[in-house]
Amino acid sequence: MTDPAPRRRGRPSRTEEESGPGARTRILEAARAQFAERGYDKASVRGIAKAAGVDPALVHHYFGTKDEVFAAAIEVSFEPAAVLPAILGGPREAIGERLARFFIGVWENPASRAPLLAIVRSALTHEAAAKVLRTFVLRRLLERIAAELDVPDPGFRAELAASHMIGIVIMRYVIQVEPLASADPERIVEQVAPTLQRYLTEG
Amino acid sequence: MTDPAPRRRGRPSRTEEESGPGARTRILEAARAQFAERGYDKASVRGIAKAAGVDPALVHHYFGTKDEVFAAAIEVSFEPAAVLPAILGGPREAIGERLARFFIGVWENPASRAPLLAIVRSALTHEAAAKVLRTFVLRRLLERIAAELDVPDPGFRAELAASHMIGIVIMRYVIQVEPLASADPERIVEQVAPTLQRYLTEG
Repeated sequence: MTDPAPRRRGRPSRTEEESGPGARTRILEAARAQFAERGYDKASVRGIAKAAGVDPALVHHYFGTKDEVFAAAIEVSFEPAAVLPAILGGPREAIGERLARFFIGVWENPASRAPLLAIVRSALTHEAAAKVLRTFVLRRLLERIAAELDVPDPGFRAELAASHMIGIVIMRYVIQVEPLASADPERIVEQVAPTLQRYLTEG
Repeated sequence: MTDPAPRRRGRPSRTEEESGPGARTRILEAARAQFAERGYDKASVRGIAKAAGVDPALVHHYFGTKDEVFAAAIEVSFEPAAVLPAILGGPREAIGERLARFFIGVWENPASRAPLLAIVRSALTHEAAAKVLRTFVLRRLLERIAAELDVPDPGFRAELAASHMIGIVIMRYVIQVEPLASADPERIVEQVAPTLQRYLTEG
C-alpha cells in the first residue's frame, strides 16, 4: 500500500511571500489590530490570519494558541527585550526616572496605546485574557526587573512600581480623569520617578 | 370642566413599608448587587426596583437616572462622607498611612469588594460608566482631598495618590498578579503609605 496523496483542504497554496519572514510581522500587526478593535474574546486566529493574508495554520505555526498570539501582541507593543536592559542597566540612581519615562512614552505613542488599551480592557473583563497578562507580566517582566534589584522582596517591590504605572494608565488614558488626563507627560515622570526609585532601590 | 381623576397606571399601590425610609437602603443594596452581578450595561432601574421590591418610579424619585443610581451605589460602598474627614483631619504626618489603610480595608472586605470590582470593570469597558466614575471621583473625592492639601497642584497630587491605589486594586484583586495578590495587607500599607504621604504633603 502506498501513502495516500496529501489531501488539500481547500486552503490557498502558500507562496514565498505568504510564509516568508514578513509573514510573522504581518501576523503580529494584524493581531494587535484585531485585539485592539474587537477585544480579546471576539478576536480569533481565523480573523487575524485573514487580515494578515495568511493561512490560519501559519498563525498556529508561529505562535501556537490564541492566548500565545495575544501574549506576543502585548510584547510587540513595547518590546521589553530590547528596552529593559537599557532601563535596568543604566546608572542606579536614575532607574525610576528611566522606567517612568519609558512607560509613559509607550502610552503616549498612539500606535502602541490602542492595542495596549484593548489588552488592559480585555484583561479586566475576561479571565482568559487576565491569565495571559498575569503570566506575561509575572514571568517576563516583573521577574526580569526583580532579578536586577538589590532590595528585600524584589518581586513585591517591582510589582508595587508596576501597580503605580498601571494605575496612571487607568486614570489618564482609560477613565480620563482630570487633571491627570491632560497633564504634561514630563510632569508625570517628574513626580512618579522618585516613587519608582524608592520601590526599586531603597531597602 | 373638572380635572380628570388621576389615572392609575397599573402600578402596585405603595404601602408604608414600600416607600418608607427602609426603601432607600433596600434600593441601594439592590443596586450594588445588580451592578456587581450584571455589570453597568446590563443592570437596569427596572431590575433594581424589582430586586428591592419597589416601583421603578421610586428608584427614579430617590436617585434620578441609572447613572445616578450607579454613582450612589459606588458611594455607599465606601461612604466617603463619613470617612474622609477623619482621614484628612487627623495628624498630617500620618495622612498617607490612614489613606492607605482605609483604602485597602475597603477592598479587603468582600461585601464592598464585589460591587467595587464590578464598577471598575464597567468603567473600563463602558464610556457611560467611566463618565460616572470620572465625575464621581473628580467631583466628590479628589476635589475634597485636594481642598485639604497644602501642596502645589493639589488636584494633580491627589490624583497621583489615587492612581497608585487604583493600580494596586487592579494588580491585586482584578488581574491577581503574585506576589501582590497574596501579600499581607499590612505590608502593602507599610510600603504605599510613604508614597501617598509624599504626594499629599511634600511640596
